[in-house]
Amino acid sequence: MDKSKKYLIVGLGLLGGKYALELTKAGYHVDGINRSEANLQWALDNGYIRTGKTHDFEDLVAGADHIIFGLYPTALLEWFQTYGHLLKAGCVFTDVSGVKTGLVEPIQALCGPGVEFIASHPMAGRETSGVQHAAEVNFAPANFIITPTEKNTPEAIEWVRQLAQTLGFEHITTLSCAEHDKMIGYVSQLCHAIAVSLMCANDNTSLSEYTGDSFRDLTRIARINDKMWAELFLWNRDNLIAEIDQFDGALQQLKADLIRGDREGLEEMFRLSTRRRAAFDKK
Amino acid sequence: MDKSKKYLIVGLGLLGGKYALELTKAGYHVDGINRSEANLQWALDNGYIRTGKTHDFEDLVAGADHIIFGLYPTALLEWFQTYGHLLKAGCVFTDVSGVKTGLVEPIQALCGPGVEFIASHPMAGRETSGVQHAAEVNFAPANFIITPTEKNTPEAIEWVRQLAQTLGFEHITTLSCAEHDKMIGYVSQLCHAIAVSLMCANDNTSLSEYTGDSFRDLTRIARINDKMWAELFLWNRDNLIAEIDQFDGALQQLKADLIRGDREGLEEMFRLSTRRRAAFDKK
Repeated sequence: MDKSKKYLIVGLGLLGGKYALELTKAGYHVDGINRSEANLQWALDNGYIRTGKTHDFEDLVAGADHIIFGLYPTALLEWFQTYGHLLKAGCVFTDVSGVKTGLVEPIQALCGPGVEFIASHPMAGRETSGVQHAAEVNFAPANFIITPTEKNTPEAIEWVRQLAQTLGFEHITTLSCAEHDKMIGYVSQLCHAIAVSLMCANDNTSLSEYTGDSFRDLTRIARINDKMWAELFLWNRDNLIAEIDQFDGALQQLKADLIRGDREGLEEMFRLSTRRRAAFDKK
Repeated sequence: MDKSKKYLIVGLGLLGGKYALELTKAGYHVDGINRSEANLQWALDNGYIRTGKTHDFEDLVAGADHIIFGLYPTALLEWFQTYGHLLKAGCVFTDVSGVKTGLVEPIQALCGPGVEFIASHPMAGRETSGVQHAAEVNFAPANFIITPTEKNTPEAIEWVRQLAQTLGFEHITTLSCAEHDKMIGYVSQLCHAIAVSLMCANDNTSLSEYTGDSFRDLTRIARINDKMWAELFLWNRDNLIAEIDQFDGALQQLKADLIRGDREGLEEMFRLSTRRRAAFDKK
């Protein structure tokens, strides 16, 4: 990547803050835009960004060679509808959003001549939020997914791949937006929906003294950022509903085996799950 | 505990083997009965037991002051119906079974005069099986649950408590059989039913390269001993079916919120699950 280019982070949350920190450490010029004055000031005080603004930021947007949007999908789309025309020709930008369908194409359609949006998703777990916790995020074991469309150039795809490497990602892959959202509906969102449902099913806190590792592992992700996950679930709801239905089908089959007292049916499910789970251990 | 007493382990599997090992190390006289000749020989060769038999074991049973049954519930009930009359007056014995209702009362009813069954459950996770893996089991972080009935004496309850301490358990509690089975239906069996259903829902092995810690944690227990868990699920099926229904109610509520696009409803579930899960972290 070219160190003479100016980087702009819009949205200095946990991920936006981490991008700012890593790019600054690597020697890039990084500015920031953030809604909250306090978090912007924190990023300035800690040297994550060189300059920053909460409003009247048109000059920062127009001067950026690369922009990274650390915003939720709804906020990103609204921001771009308002300010997207300010991006200069030659600007190549990306996002961090956990859903892509319904977001990438509308934004690409709004891009002016010579402006290119190459979408990507850093699959970094986050039980905390805010720029103050950004330094704790470790990108090395996480997946970085690039989701190009037919509108993207090989140069932009290569830029975002190098960005991911600079940020410390070791697993960088490419999927279509539809593939990405289907995958994320199963691998991440369904798991969170299950953990949340397990905790909401009844008031089980009196049982905490009897719980072992199984229960703790299963419900760790039930501690969840309510705003962010409601957003991600709703943006991907068709995929998530399909995954819930498929999961529920398997659970109802297990229940039917129980009601019938079908020992062989249960054992067959257990052998199938054991076989499939073993494939995940090899990686 | 009295070191002049003779201990007998019936069923030298993972847990029976671990009990034999720890009692022998602590200086007790431990004999063993096992169906498989090879595993019995392994326990003898490795000094887990002093003597052992696969059949014609009436003298070992009649000579035992304390017996520990390391058998699945169905096998335990059948064994006791056949050989239970051999236990001598004064014999106090326990089991390791993961379900209690329908097991403890019938066996207590079969006990001769002066013979006492005090049931208990070492809640030790096991992804492996067999006496050869017994030494790997760590009892210290696990819960040991004693499930007395109105037929039990304070002396027998005290004996099994000291047994648990000798075995290395640090968390020893008491529940009724009904409380135990309801608790285990939620804390353990429902979690396993969910993990198995998640793996059986579709052939997801191609997604393994995209999975993170959330998915791995959630499905770790989908590697499951098919015979044992079919047994445990069927013995506790009324409780487990009730738990599945309650969990499914919460999952369907989440799905209904998704279909309606009810952001506030989703956020409320997420805040509830976050609050409840936090209670489990404190312990």
